[in-house]
Amino acid sequence: MGKSAGEGEDALLRWLRRRLAKIQPGEELLGDDAAKIAVREDLAITMDSQIEGVHFFPGLPPEMPPEYDRRVFFRSFLRHCRRFGVRLAGGDLSQASHVQIVITLLGQRQGRFLERSGAAPGDVIYLGGEIGLSSLGFLLLAAGARLAGGKIALPDFLEKKFHPAARHAVRRHLLPTPQLELGSRLALGSAAGAALDVSDGLAKDLHRLCRESRVGASIDAERLPMPAAGRRLAARLAENLPAGQGRSWLDLALGGGEDYVLLFTLPPGEPPPAGSFAIGRATRSRTILLNEAGRRRPLPPLGFDHLS
Amino acid sequence: MGKSAGEGEDALLRWLRRRLAKIQPGEELLGDDAAKIAVREDLAITMDSQIEGVHFFPGLPPEMPPEYDRRVFFRSFLRHCRRFGVRLAGGDLSQASHVQIVITLLGQRQGRFLERSGAAPGDVIYLGGEIGLSSLGFLLLAAGARLAGGKIALPDFLEKKFHPAARHAVRRHLLPTPQLELGSRLALGSAAGAALDVSDGLAKDLHRLCRESRVGASIDAERLPMPAAGRRLAARLAENLPAGQGRSWLDLALGGGEDYVLLFTLPPGEPPPAGSFAIGRATRSRTILLNEAGRRRPLPPLGFDHLS
Repeated sequence: MGKSAGEGEDALLRWLRRRLAKIQPGEELLGDDAAKIAVREDLAITMDSQIEGVHFFPGLPPEMPPEYDRRVFFRSFLRHCRRFGVRLAGGDLSQASHVQIVITLLGQRQGRFLERSGAAPGDVIYLGGEIGLSSLGFLLLAAGARLAGGKIALPDFLEKKFHPAARHAVRRHLLPTPQLELGSRLALGSAAGAALDVSDGLAKDLHRLCRESRVGASIDAERLPMPAAGRRLAARLAENLPAGQGRSWLDLALGGGEDYVLLFTLPPGEPPPAGSFAIGRATRSRTILLNEAGRRRPLPPLGFDHLS
Repeated sequence: MGKSAGEGEDALLRWLRRRLAKIQPGEELLGDDAAKIAVREDLAITMDSQIEGVHFFPGLPPEMPPEYDRRVFFRSFLRHCRRFGVRLAGGDLSQASHVQIVITLLGQRQGRFLERSGAAPGDVIYLGGEIGLSSLGFLLLAAGARLAGGKIALPDFLEKKFHPAARHAVRRHLLPTPQLELGSRLALGSAAGAALDVSDGLAKDLHRLCRESRVGASIDAERLPMPAAGRRLAARLAENLPAGQGRSWLDLALGGGEDYVLLFTLPPGEPPPAGSFAIGRATRSRTILLNEAGRRRPLPPLGFDHLS
């Protein structure tokens, strides 16, 4: 579980159990190496890891005191569990040279399972929210932006007129919000085809959706929902950063990643949920094309690869 | 998932899916970020991590070629999944500075759940197999023993008469075998009280069993199942290793850890499964005592703490 505040495993577990006794009264899910879970129907299960230096900047405190402290981490973690209606069961604590958090999440279905494989040719492709901002926030952090005591300090070179968009981008990167309501709405309706969240870059995740659904796609660059203030900020950063470190807004929108908005499809004519953006269509041909300024070109799977 | 053989995430996943299509035909548990699992009744769920430099020596190859290779790891992993009847579902791949494997295991109950909290005063305390050998293997590896090409090379200073016990100890450390049959037998019977596996040291895990069951214990040192050859080897190593690095056989048996044998209790008079060793009794007083050479002293929770 990472760097130490000097506390032993059993002491930390006892503290956690006392806290959970208040939050999840009547449930005892920490006593044994395995937890017993009562299941009403089929499960969805997923794992995800956050590793210091890989998924977040080394030294970034989780909640965010200057010294890494496991209890502060768990306090914040449990607060977010409550916010999203998640109950904590068991866990495995270990020392390591880097902070790392690996979570297994079990869910019971409400409505249908939304999968990558459900898109059909002709379906309209939607994004559930704006993209590109999180990777803009990442560039700002790499350029010296910091979150401390809930406030965001920005690099000196950045003019005041860019500050609101820059703070928004840093928050989107450090404090992403999953689109659970939208996902639930799509699962409870009957129209949605495929769905996944955009975590590794729109282009890469679109390739995955198309591969699993055995369709192609045609995407319009001008319909990509990256706000104008974000596009201007991307241009300003590219001017100031060393050659090769700046990125165009389109590159950030297509390959930036960590947006955590939903990418989904609906049949043509089906009204989309409020706040979503149509960006193109699924096609029968298996190619994935980007239409930009009247020209059409193949869109490579730009984005983050966890292994290279 | 650790060091790289240069392969991207999607390519590795495609390779894994092809292999799984042969091993688990008709099941498709890798396509989405979450896997759907059909559940017949309540689940037991557990997580465990193996981190290079924490749980195993840096550079130790998993199966065991000189260069870390993810496909070699997964081939070996899937072979062991088959051996133990485990199906693989989903997963999360990531680059990291160290090799690390984190596994979530879901199980459906056969018989009762065996928990730490089921011991009663008067119960006999058993070990399902020999202990202390794994930590002896660890000392040998620290002193230069190596496993290469399925053969174990031992440090030069070690006389031939110690070699069989030394090879056995190194294998116990590197290739532990969980006592699944014994666990299943205890769960299907009605007599067993508490049970857990000894992974962090007998004394530490006994403290946990007693705390959860609200009992004490009285343990007899001479009944601890560490084989005589292992005791002699421990003494020989202590002669040769620098001061402070050698450990007595009793210290290894009580605090060595990573034995992965079951520690369990049965009511008095209940016949134990073949191959198990009675080591003491649960008591009404909440103290945990060790009887050694006619003397009785408190037994501290010796063993491995994952956080300190």
